[in-house]
Amino acid sequence: MGRLVMKFGGTSVAGVDQIRTAAQHVGREVAAGHQVAVVVSAMAGQTDMLAGLAREAAPMHDAREYDAILASGEQVTAGLMAIVLQEQGIPARSWTGWQVPVHTDGVHAAARITSIDAEQMRKRLEQGQVAVVTGFQGLGPDQRVTTLGRGGSDTSAVAIAAALEANCDIYSDVDGIYTSDPRIVEQAHKLARISYEEMLELASLGAKVLQTRSVELAMVYGVQLRVRSSFEAADAPLDDDNGPGTLVCDEEDIVEQQVVSGITYSKDEAQISLRRVKDKPGVSAAIFGPLAEADISVDMIVQNVSADGETANLTFTLATKDLARALEVLDGAKDKIGFNEMTHATGVAKVSVIGIGMRSHAGVASRMFKALAEKGINIQLITTSEIKISVLIDAAYTELAVRVLHSAYDLDKA
Amino acid sequence: MGRLVMKFGGTSVAGVDQIRTAAQHVGREVAAGHQVAVVVSAMAGQTDMLAGLAREAAPMHDAREYDAILASGEQVTAGLMAIVLQEQGIPARSWTGWQVPVHTDGVHAAARITSIDAEQMRKRLEQGQVAVVTGFQGLGPDQRVTTLGRGGSDTSAVAIAAALEANCDIYSDVDGIYTSDPRIVEQAHKLARISYEEMLELASLGAKVLQTRSVELAMVYGVQLRVRSSFEAADAPLDDDNGPGTLVCDEEDIVEQQVVSGITYSKDEAQISLRRVKDKPGVSAAIFGPLAEADISVDMIVQNVSADGETANLTFTLATKDLARALEVLDGAKDKIGFNEMTHATGVAKVSVIGIGMRSHAGVASRMFKALAEKGINIQLITTSEIKISVLIDAAYTELAVRVLHSAYDLDKA
Repeated sequence: MGRLVMKFGGTSVAGVDQIRTAAQHVGREVAAGHQVAVVVSAMAGQTDMLAGLAREAAPMHDAREYDAILASGEQVTAGLMAIVLQEQGIPARSWTGWQVPVHTDGVHAAARITSIDAEQMRKRLEQGQVAVVTGFQGLGPDQRVTTLGRGGSDTSAVAIAAALEANCDIYSDVDGIYTSDPRIVEQAHKLARISYEEMLELASLGAKVLQTRSVELAMVYGVQLRVRSSFEAADAPLDDDNGPGTLVCDEEDIVEQQVVSGITYSKDEAQISLRRVKDKPGVSAAIFGPLAEADISVDMIVQNVSADGETANLTFTLATKDLARALEVLDGAKDKIGFNEMTHATGVAKVSVIGIGMRSHAGVASRMFKALAEKGINIQLITTSEIKISVLIDAAYTELAVRVLHSAYDLDKA
Repeated sequence: MGRLVMKFGGTSVAGVDQIRTAAQHVGREVAAGHQVAVVVSAMAGQTDMLAGLAREAAPMHDAREYDAILASGEQVTAGLMAIVLQEQGIPARSWTGWQVPVHTDGVHAAARITSIDAEQMRKRLEQGQVAVVTGFQGLGPDQRVTTLGRGGSDTSAVAIAAALEANCDIYSDVDGIYTSDPRIVEQAHKLARISYEEMLELASLGAKVLQTRSVELAMVYGVQLRVRSSFEAADAPLDDDNGPGTLVCDEEDIVEQQVVSGITYSKDEAQISLRRVKDKPGVSAAIFGPLAEADISVDMIVQNVSADGETANLTFTLATKDLARALEVLDGAKDKIGFNEMTHATGVAKVSVIGIGMRSHAGVASRMFKALAEKGINIQLITTSEIKISVLIDAAYTELAVRVLHSAYDLDKA
């Protein structure tokens, strides 16, 4: 019992047939006595199509108009979902972001939700009506429609769950969070539970299951998230006591905590090294300021002192697609930065192990380095956080490294 | 100078290229010093596509959700038009029906505009910003989005023009109102001016250029309408003193009024005759009530007394697609109506002559009957209004009849 937000992604509402399947999941929860709010994305491909039209109109365009155009996608799926639910005998109505209203700041195309006035919606929920809400969008301070940026529907769902004091189930075309990519690691298995912190690392590493911001919000507001598949039959029996999919929750709710929960990788990495950078205050700002202004995200950053003790070598990674632009920006800032030589490399990959258990277990990193060394895989860079160790290696060894580490941390299961 | 509403239909905004062409027309009016509000339809085909999705979701569906779905189409074109205008250096922003707001009644899918609060929009217009408004939609009393029914964007445009005390130019893929269908009558020519009343008859006869309701509104509020083509070059020289396209205006503004302004036809007609209907009060209601309830529109109705003086013969026309359903409905109501025999025919066509000059000229009808008789065309039914005479004939003679009448009323010009 209680309130539940059910979020369906683009592939789960890609057509009327898929919407019907999704609606059966909703029907099951309504029959179980839940008050249900459904949050929908646009049909798969629709947002890209609309963004393409905006670009065709003008490559650089008013973000407010971009938002007005893109927000139409979720309106269509919300209306269709409401119709299908009604057809299945379930009272339902659609709500747009401005109707709820979901208030956001004024940063069009990348807005943040500032508050949700869920009073009207809550009343309808209590009367037994399912609320079908457009994800990804809200109402800005200028009374114009805003969008939250890519993957924003996850954030909409979690924010609405927080406003309604509800749990939040995220339905997509994957059935949960895995210990690694099953296409690479045959023994990868679905995790029953994962902590917010681990999920956050996974999301920021590019696992496309959940948007980073939505995990942050869930953690802050204590919204219990469940990642599950909309393509399983709505009445499928549960495979274990943990319920379907993967539960994202507080770490204290995870009883049998593994040292490492998952192995991830990212292949489209490039690396830039600046040699003999004068080691003076402000030099990092001189390097990363211009890159940030050019909207280039950098990932791993490693700096160490060179042999002469007065200059430093600095290496960082970035997406391959940004490499050419980054080299240009840094070359333009050469005098200000003051480096001796700039080199770059592509064909590198980042492999990471993630686990909240690292906090209390020694030897996690050395086990990683040993396992890679045994296979002759050279480590080019290392960065660590409290619950993550990432290494940069030759991209050709990516799959091997992921499989080796999956075994090394005892993640292979029957 | 002054205010101008420019409305672009679906084919005029069918893609970004067409929107660019339309924007050039807007640019010309802005350069001429006008304050411009642009009203846009959805891209051609988009509304049908969205309605198809709603039907796929459920054949009978909640009209409020249908409206939520369909209203998305104009949002896309309004945003794109604003971007394209900005790209051409013209300040512009998009407005949805609820943002203006355009208030309507609560009859979803067929709403009527009740009032327009154009204050915010007017302010922006006065600052030199073009307002791009979504046609076809408004905000219902329940704070949900309503749509005005097919062709509703014309009505939106005229209502906004009335609220702004502006003239209204309707752009589409036709360049004006013609004396007849140029595909049938080679000598058909574009009218420089036509009266509201004549336009209303043409619109209700199925001329797809303007929606009937929009003409009514223009007449009531004295909005000067101009029908013109968006596919002519924006800087094309005008062909005469009357300006481009056709002006729809008060009859006193038409100096050289012809007796007849145009000849129209409608081919997909069927006819039902009820013989020896008991001629008693309420019999018409018994016939047409059940048809109206079945959502079947009837057109020409002719009743006359039969030879016995106690019963009547009653004939009416309707769209061929409704014939089977109408026969079923009437058969079910046979006892209540009390008729002797029901016959029907397809393969008939309605040909009409329209002209405000009929009011002051005698012999208009007889000229029609004579012209048709000379070609051996038999008239099956006749109905007349103040400014229109319609006859029902064998559909095979449609083109011949139209051409003969076009000549008979001196409409053939070089």
